[in-house]
Amino acid sequence: MNATLPAHLLAMERRAVPAEMIAALKTRFAERCSTAQSVREQHGRDESPFEVAPPDAVVFAESTEEVAEVLVLADRYAVPVIAFGVGSSLEGHLLAVQGGISIDVSRMNRVLRINDEDLTVTVQPGVTRNQLNNEIRHTGLFFPIDPGADASLGGMAATRASGTNAVRYGTMRENVLALQVVTATGEVIRTGTRAKKSSAGYDLTRLMVGSEGTLGIITEVTVKLYPQPESVSAAICHFPSIDAAVKTAIQIIQLGVPIARCELLDANAVRAVNLHDKLSLREAPMLLMEFHGSAASVAEQAQVVQDVAREHSGENFEWATTPEERTRLWTARHRAYFAGMSSHPGCRTVTTDTCVPISRLAECIDLAVREADEAGLPYYIVGHVGDGNFHIAYLIDPAKPEQRETAERLNEQLVHHALKLEGTCTGEHGIGLHKQGFLIDETGLATVQMMRVLKRALDPKNILNPGKIFAL
Amino acid sequence: MNATLPAHLLAMERRAVPAEMIAALKTRFAERCSTAQSVREQHGRDESPFEVAPPDAVVFAESTEEVAEVLVLADRYAVPVIAFGVGSSLEGHLLAVQGGISIDVSRMNRVLRINDEDLTVTVQPGVTRNQLNNEIRHTGLFFPIDPGADASLGGMAATRASGTNAVRYGTMRENVLALQVVTATGEVIRTGTRAKKSSAGYDLTRLMVGSEGTLGIITEVTVKLYPQPESVSAAICHFPSIDAAVKTAIQIIQLGVPIARCELLDANAVRAVNLHDKLSLREAPMLLMEFHGSAASVAEQAQVVQDVAREHSGENFEWATTPEERTRLWTARHRAYFAGMSSHPGCRTVTTDTCVPISRLAECIDLAVREADEAGLPYYIVGHVGDGNFHIAYLIDPAKPEQRETAERLNEQLVHHALKLEGTCTGEHGIGLHKQGFLIDETGLATVQMMRVLKRALDPKNILNPGKIFAL
Repeated sequence: MNATLPAHLLAMERRAVPAEMIAALKTRFAERCSTAQSVREQHGRDESPFEVAPPDAVVFAESTEEVAEVLVLADRYAVPVIAFGVGSSLEGHLLAVQGGISIDVSRMNRVLRINDEDLTVTVQPGVTRNQLNNEIRHTGLFFPIDPGADASLGGMAATRASGTNAVRYGTMRENVLALQVVTATGEVIRTGTRAKKSSAGYDLTRLMVGSEGTLGIITEVTVKLYPQPESVSAAICHFPSIDAAVKTAIQIIQLGVPIARCELLDANAVRAVNLHDKLSLREAPMLLMEFHGSAASVAEQAQVVQDVAREHSGENFEWATTPEERTRLWTARHRAYFAGMSSHPGCRTVTTDTCVPISRLAECIDLAVREADEAGLPYYIVGHVGDGNFHIAYLIDPAKPEQRETAERLNEQLVHHALKLEGTCTGEHGIGLHKQGFLIDETGLATVQMMRVLKRALDPKNILNPGKIFAL
Repeated sequence: MNATLPAHLLAMERRAVPAEMIAALKTRFAERCSTAQSVREQHGRDESPFEVAPPDAVVFAESTEEVAEVLVLADRYAVPVIAFGVGSSLEGHLLAVQGGISIDVSRMNRVLRINDEDLTVTVQPGVTRNQLNNEIRHTGLFFPIDPGADASLGGMAATRASGTNAVRYGTMRENVLALQVVTATGEVIRTGTRAKKSSAGYDLTRLMVGSEGTLGIITEVTVKLYPQPESVSAAICHFPSIDAAVKTAIQIIQLGVPIARCELLDANAVRAVNLHDKLSLREAPMLLMEFHGSAASVAEQAQVVQDVAREHSGENFEWATTPEERTRLWTARHRAYFAGMSSHPGCRTVTTDTCVPISRLAECIDLAVREADEAGLPYYIVGHVGDGNFHIAYLIDPAKPEQRETAERLNEQLVHHALKLEGTCTGEHGIGLHKQGFLIDETGLATVQMMRVLKRALDPKNILNPGKIFAL
């Protein structure tokens, strides 16, 4: 956690939190309001490379009403408020760059209503995706959104998360049906219903999804569920080059194959995963795929994909036929982030998140690889390539600021290239602290200005996770 | 067009359009700015049962820049502006209840960029869905959203439209990737990119989708396309009761069958369609279904669905195997609205649009039928039952105000029932003029209040389609 914040963020002033507000919180929440340094520091960091920016106090909320009470106080004293789930943000969302109160919602972790006959479930924001899938397993349904980390549903909604299954099942954008939200003044509102579709006024649900805690605090999330597929098969396929693997993925999508997961790992990522998870995968570019459907449909999808892979010199599929093998492979994939880091002990990562139209993906990855190779920084690549989204993680020595600068330069070059290809600077991690300049490059200033106008309208005192997405 | 507007809407005052603004428009647009009564009246109505509320002038715009020029003038003079596509709204969206300028975008009808290798297309707002599908046919792709009417893409985006294919392909909510929008001050902004997913700031695209022209005027729409399925089969199946048909649909969804279309027609709708389209369908409740996929997948889906239908005493499927037969059936389905009206010459319809969680659908339709039967008004039912959405159209004699009152009472009872079942008052038609009270009932006043705050922030002079969705 040694990397420093960009200068314009460091220049932000911490706002005063009056002693009487802290006193009021301690009176109300007793030991569930902490000002202990260790607790504050734990809540002032996330998986981003920035140094800790601790809040002034942490409140462990146990209900919507309690969140609303904190907001009423925060409104009165114009004090920043940041919701905290499990802390898995990669973009500095949880750093209290202007001080204030962190509301830890991890104790709001109940699955409230399973409506299996409607394929929906309503949960508190602290429920994590693995917990949710465990609690609904008996229904025969599952929740597909899978960002790797065992993130909270509240956090996933707030960053519009996605992950490995998005190619078939969509992202949080497509899968959140309804929300309960506490506003900047402590009012509790509901957006959306459990109906599958609606044309009832502004889509406040999707305005909140991806708003990174800057427009309201999410206290309930209703999401879609899906029947567990009758048949699931996972396979890996090695390729002579990244380009061949990516071109295979592109063609799979263009053919409309309803593949459930289509993940790229470059040789570096495979090597790291082998070391970290004691696997013996061939250290070559690889697609890790999963097919969902009826037995016949899975077989058919796999056949089409094998044919496509062969055209691009892919090897024969190696199948993970048992659930245990599948779990082992996907666990390894999800640990690639930690595997990559542990391959260079003491390092930190700077991770890109560009997403481009599928036909531009090969060109975009090719450029990223060439520039990373030229720069000489260690890196690895994992990618949700079925969606046109990939991450190149540059491994940097925090004691060498020039490495961080190099990584940031590479990231910037890649983002600008992705924007030229009509893509986005962030497929799933969000803007947070890190990509505010990229957001302007991507949308243009007028569009960010519209976002600011909305922010000011809903949060005139700028107390909801201030300093994130854009400077006001 | 004899039905009168509700009293609170009639009470709205038309706002003055200064003669110098009309003069400026006529100077700029010459014969493309019309104040002829017939043109104004044509642009002051839609398919809703309300009487004409003509704008003061109609401008036929041919480019984004021209739309922006009109907005700059409208901003200067604080004059209402309403975008007009093909006029197929069912909820009064196009009525100039406060006067002002109608911007007809039907001449902005070019398909701008077909990116078939990315499965996206960018169009001007006046492109209709049939035109779009004709122009992209050679690519092997299609655009699935199908609200029945040959609506414009701009209008479909503005009302968050859906239709018969939504059960598999989603609505405009899921299928719009990016927009170009002219703001209330005449600024041109872009939202979204052609990347399939993004976490880059507020989801302004989805804020605009469904905003009914009240937050900006859509001047370009980028939507997702899909490979034309290898195999398409349509089938009809008759049932002894509406309930049996609906329960079949519910089970199909709960089983996760990826059915492409699953439409209910009650016996009245079938009768009307038979008369209007010279068909000889059995006049009993019926599901009209379509399956997309590989030949094997289509066969498999159809088998599952036949088994389910049989459990609910459905008859054997009658297959529409040739494209011509399929087109005939779907054309009949799409004409049900006009068929229903022509079954009672001179009548108007009041059409409900509730959408409920799928498990509640049978109960909801059952209540609608019982209450309509008791009231003694002629009606027919068509429904996108795979989505939990259905329309009961009450046929009323415009000369008999008590019939309209009865229909409105039935609609209100149904909406309130649907809301109790955790559904929405409108699945796809929008709020417009007609459902403003229902919106408050559905979301609560605080949520509508948040919508108003957003509206005031983006359109402080209230010139963008004022009086729609909510009263300010």
